Amino acid sequence: MKKWDDSNIRALTFDVFGTVVDWRAGIIREGEALGRSRSLRADWAKFADAWRDLYQPSMDRVRRGEIPWTPLDELHRLALEKVVQQLGIDPLGMEQLDQLNRAWHRLDPWPDGIPGLLRLKRRFILATLSNGNVALLVNMAKRAGLPWDAILGAEVARHYKPDPEAYLKTAELLGLRPEQCLMVAAHNRDLIAAGDLGFRTAFVFRRNERGPNQTSDLKPERDFDIVSEDFLDLAAQLGC
Amino acid sequence: MKKWDDSNIRALTFDVFGTVVDWRAGIIREGEALGRSRSLRADWAKFADAWRDLYQPSMDRVRRGEIPWTPLDELHRLALEKVVQQLGIDPLGMEQLDQLNRAWHRLDPWPDGIPGLLRLKRRFILATLSNGNVALLVNMAKRAGLPWDAILGAEVARHYKPDPEAYLKTAELLGLRPEQCLMVAAHNRDLIAAGDLGFRTAFVFRRNERGPNQTSDLKPERDFDIVSEDFLDLAAQLGC
Repeated sequence: MKKWDDSNIRALTFDVFGTVVDWRAGIIREGEALGRSRSLRADWAKFADAWRDLYQPSMDRVRRGEIPWTPLDELHRLALEKVVQQLGIDPLGMEQLDQLNRAWHRLDPWPDGIPGLLRLKRRFILATLSNGNVALLVNMAKRAGLPWDAILGAEVARHYKPDPEAYLKTAELLGLRPEQCLMVAAHNRDLIAAGDLGFRTAFVFRRNERGPNQTSDLKPERDFDIVSEDFLDLAAQLGC
Repeated sequence: MKKWDDSNIRALTFDVFGTVVDWRAGIIREGEALGRSRSLRADWAKFADAWRDLYQPSMDRVRRGEIPWTPLDELHRLALEKVVQQLGIDPLGMEQLDQLNRAWHRLDPWPDGIPGLLRLKRRFILATLSNGNVALLVNMAKRAGLPWDAILGAEVARHYKPDPEAYLKTAELLGLRPEQCLMVAAHNRDLIAAGDLGFRTAFVFRRNERGPNQTSDLKPERDFDIVSEDFLDLAAQLGC
């Protein structure tokens, strides 16, 4: 573990889904609970993966301008209807679908999440730089105890990552230049986009984000400023 | 003290300058410190009042569309140059002016501020709905320990209060209807604007915000939902 020093860094900006919270376990858990309460049989892991597989295609429609700006809650809701049809998880009423859609507001952090963030918060501004909408992230933080200083990212920029506007607007709202921000993510694509705009970059391993058969983001694919095992390791490397 | 009950309320949205923090004492203190370090004589209370007197006229230029959206830090900076000239507080270099301008980031809360907010935070989402820009409010919160769940308001809406957009955008970003938000302010004008849009309203007395000779906002001028002595009283009335 090398100690990394850049006294210019004022804020850490975080990817959230997969980096801070374990979306897959959370969606499976909520699916199972719904299944029990409604006596529905389904492969909830397959359900979670199928729902998440529609994540990037949903945002692509916004990125390409095919549809106007649409918050993630609404994209999730549209994708959910497709997934329950595809997998034959029926019948679910509007109320159950709305309830299930808000499972993304109720995800739990990885075990190192809260203790790591609390250490990092002593020295740095901690801001979300997520594709999640503000309400989703506020509700998630409130429930899980995530100690954000600011909830920023796609919705305030009205652009989904990796569009440059999402990163640049977040830095601008914090009153910082990109090089004063350290982007923290478990995803190469996100860090590469941030790094190309001047952000500092910290890769965090989340080897089970996509379950036991994960094939992507198993290692850093560029020379990021920091490579860390988890948030506690990140805090240690930053001297927190 | 009547106990007030509205189970619809999910978020408390706060005016900040004057309601949460004592801007006048803070600006006087920073002026005095600068004066000592530069051997400058000035009436720093008069300076603080003169600077604040340019607050509404500065925002009016944005509200009327005479100038494009401009964050409060920049409006403060333009007003500061005028004030130091008017009062003959010279010579101050660019660096001193920049430093003094950031005094707004370093304001202290009223004594009941932090304990009151911590009690309220257990039950409600706490969001700023301030004309301050995000960076100013994040830096202030970080220094003073203000436990916001979200930093929202004018800058994310690109409209200064009391323009309706500032209130409505904040509610929208929280995923709430106006009637699920309780606007907390020491200023009648702010609460009347919020109330007209469907927000619930809580007046807080800050009888010394403008110093010993305060003439405005000494009492509620409409039938607001709650009238409270301070944030501890507000917490008690909300059953927190």
